[in-house]
Amino acid sequence: MGNYVIDGLQYARWSENVFRQMREGGVDAVHVTIAYHETFRETVLNVGRWNRWFQRWPDLITQARSGDDVRRAQATGQTAIIFGFQNPSPIEDDIDLVEIWHTLGVRFMQLSYNNQSLLATGCYEAVDPGVTRMGKQVIAEMNRVGMVLDMSHSAERSTLEAIEMSARPISITHANPHWWHPALRNKSDSVLRALAETGGMLGFSLYPHHLAGGSDCRLEDFCGMIARAAERHGSDHLGIGSDLCQDQPDRVVEWMRNGRWSKETDYGEGSASAPGFPAQPDWFKDNRDIANIRDGLRAVGFNAEEVAGIMGNNWLRFFDLSFGPAQ
Amino acid sequence: MGNYVIDGLQYARWSENVFRQMREGGVDAVHVTIAYHETFRETVLNVGRWNRWFQRWPDLITQARSGDDVRRAQATGQTAIIFGFQNPSPIEDDIDLVEIWHTLGVRFMQLSYNNQSLLATGCYEAVDPGVTRMGKQVIAEMNRVGMVLDMSHSAERSTLEAIEMSARPISITHANPHWWHPALRNKSDSVLRALAETGGMLGFSLYPHHLAGGSDCRLEDFCGMIARAAERHGSDHLGIGSDLCQDQPDRVVEWMRNGRWSKETDYGEGSASAPGFPAQPDWFKDNRDIANIRDGLRAVGFNAEEVAGIMGNNWLRFFDLSFGPAQ
Repeated sequence: MGNYVIDGLQYARWSENVFRQMREGGVDAVHVTIAYHETFRETVLNVGRWNRWFQRWPDLITQARSGDDVRRAQATGQTAIIFGFQNPSPIEDDIDLVEIWHTLGVRFMQLSYNNQSLLATGCYEAVDPGVTRMGKQVIAEMNRVGMVLDMSHSAERSTLEAIEMSARPISITHANPHWWHPALRNKSDSVLRALAETGGMLGFSLYPHHLAGGSDCRLEDFCGMIARAAERHGSDHLGIGSDLCQDQPDRVVEWMRNGRWSKETDYGEGSASAPGFPAQPDWFKDNRDIANIRDGLRAVGFNAEEVAGIMGNNWLRFFDLSFGPAQ
Repeated sequence: MGNYVIDGLQYARWSENVFRQMREGGVDAVHVTIAYHETFRETVLNVGRWNRWFQRWPDLITQARSGDDVRRAQATGQTAIIFGFQNPSPIEDDIDLVEIWHTLGVRFMQLSYNNQSLLATGCYEAVDPGVTRMGKQVIAEMNRVGMVLDMSHSAERSTLEAIEMSARPISITHANPHWWHPALRNKSDSVLRALAETGGMLGFSLYPHHLAGGSDCRLEDFCGMIARAAERHGSDHLGIGSDLCQDQPDRVVEWMRNGRWSKETDYGEGSASAPGFPAQPDWFKDNRDIANIRDGLRAVGFNAEEVAGIMGNNWLRFFDLSFGPAQ
């Protein structure tokens, strides 16, 4: 197969400018977030917006529902857009909505964002009782239809249980190892080991709060961390999940953190003195910089095939295995 | 091509029994109603129910989104189910929902049921001002994505305008000619002529209120009416749209007629003394009787190819032309 550049998660303020930068950067596919806290109906409104964008910029973007759709997009010079949720709010309390959403093209769903959900626990809760009764049912339904579990924002026990319960490999689309940078959102060694052992994918995040050194993190440190992760787990199930939130106003990070659930302000990974989006590292400001990561991976000693895998081929192989109905 | 048996509209109380009768009758495809007055969310609940039925009886039924899906269903011995609305209520006031519903498999939408809708006028209104501003936009969007206009319950002017405005052939999935039986729901000669001249499909109804003689209508009279319609308009755009409401309790016809819009009781084509579903003619009680119509069409002089066309091949050709995006 050829080589593909795939970003395992972005939530930009979408615009022609961002889509053109994706083309300039040679980004073949991006998993985009279409819901943080939205209800079913609100998320359908977001799909409606995307459909208008697909109609308006057919030379730049196209929706993908499968690995083959990504291949077709590359062949026609478009960036493939794959829908996902960072929270199960769009299925509300209705398990039938899993299949409805799969039909509408959703291919990733986090079982929880930072808080407790109906399905699992988020990484900011004090106690994690594990996957709920509904969560167990929804995991089986996601497995059946071909929607990938994403535990990026989930808490430790829920994540380990989800890996165990899921009959198909799961994902952590955007996080880094806790041993590199001990942020609440980064993942423990036991989670990363269980993920890798079951064929699950890890997308390395470029969100500054997930980086050792934050906005000042150097490319060689980021790529060196990937090299160490590859030594532990092999490189076949590693990819990029940049968590790029380009051009978003700070009210969007407030929405991510607070939704409609709080009357106090939750600052998440930020703080009262730094409540907004952090500045991106200067070597990854937007989609045009993705080649820097390719160069950085070469520089830390990955061979060409390993680099191609981490840059996108590993995600594509995972899409092929994950997005269709269970066999 | 082979021969296909297709019913252009049914709204049974769906059950394993009905699905088995479809198989026994050799019915290859049925356009089923999934909304009368339901909102967007309520109609999604109905899709959820259908998805459970598809999962439960895969040997009997399968969802179809295209003519080729109908061909595949015949090859695998299933009845293909095609979703449609009798009212535009599931798109609410949101034109983006047309594409969302198309993605979920909806292939027919009536622009109005018996009342005025946001799009057009129903056949029970005193005045028909024609297709509305939103209606005009929605027709263009339905044309774009490949969702067929159905004007079965719409009023005269709205229907003629819809035929004129639509860039693609439309349908009247379940009605008969007014010249045969002057019921409010049956269609004028000018409507039928405009429909035929633009390549639109007419599905002949077996709902007793649409039949000359009602429940006592004889098979030869029904087929004789089809023969006369074919003399006027040719037989290539004629089919069956039985409007079979098998096993439904009378509260369902109350829902069809009254939805949530009235505090008085509207009896529609019934009356206070006969408010319920009328009895089916004894030669068309359920899907197993569909061969009687085939025999009846032969008996009134149609040749084998014409019979095959009216029994389903005309619908299938229409599906091929209508269910995909505009070229």
